[in-house]
Amino acid sequence: MVDVMLKPEILDPQGQAVLSALPRLGVSGIVGVRQGKRFELELADGVEADGAVLARVEHLAATLLANPVIEDYQVRVEEPAAEAAG
Amino acid sequence: MVDVMLKPEILDPQGQAVLSALPRLGVSGIVGVRQGKRFELELADGVEADGAVLARVEHLAATLLANPVIEDYQVRVEEPAAEAAG
Repeated sequence: MVDVMLKPEILDPQGQAVLSALPRLGVSGIVGVRQGKRFELELADGVEADGAVLARVEHLAATLLANPVIEDYQVRVEEPAAEAAG
Repeated sequence: MVDVMLKPEILDPQGQAVLSALPRLGVSGIVGVRQGKRFELELADGVEADGAVLARVEHLAATLLANPVIEDYQVRVEEPAAEAAG
């Protein structure tokens, strides 16, 4: 799982749009909204999320998934069972 | 924190694009990529992420942040300290 968020100092118009829609929906108590992206990477059967694989995913995140100039990213491992809902 | 992902049966062209770029980057062992959105909602000082607040955020996720026809969403609480990286 790779989470990508705009850096805090970068303006986030999508988050701002959500934030400004909240009063219209009668929601209070929320003072900030930031929108980002998430990527679920599914590993092949038998491939363990060990250090080497995570290093590869980290490299991927920095080169393909995120733009390190304006975005922060975070790689984390999630078990398949922990997925989904809605 | 609200995570929004396309339902598994919905085609995800962005994820497909990432997946098809992997061999070019020399990355193997990844068999699936799905791209989604994540929203960080910051609560006002003194507002606890209790049941009532989570119910409001859940409602928000279903009406504003996600399209329940094609997307699944998941609301979870994250402590501010657990944030960031990159």
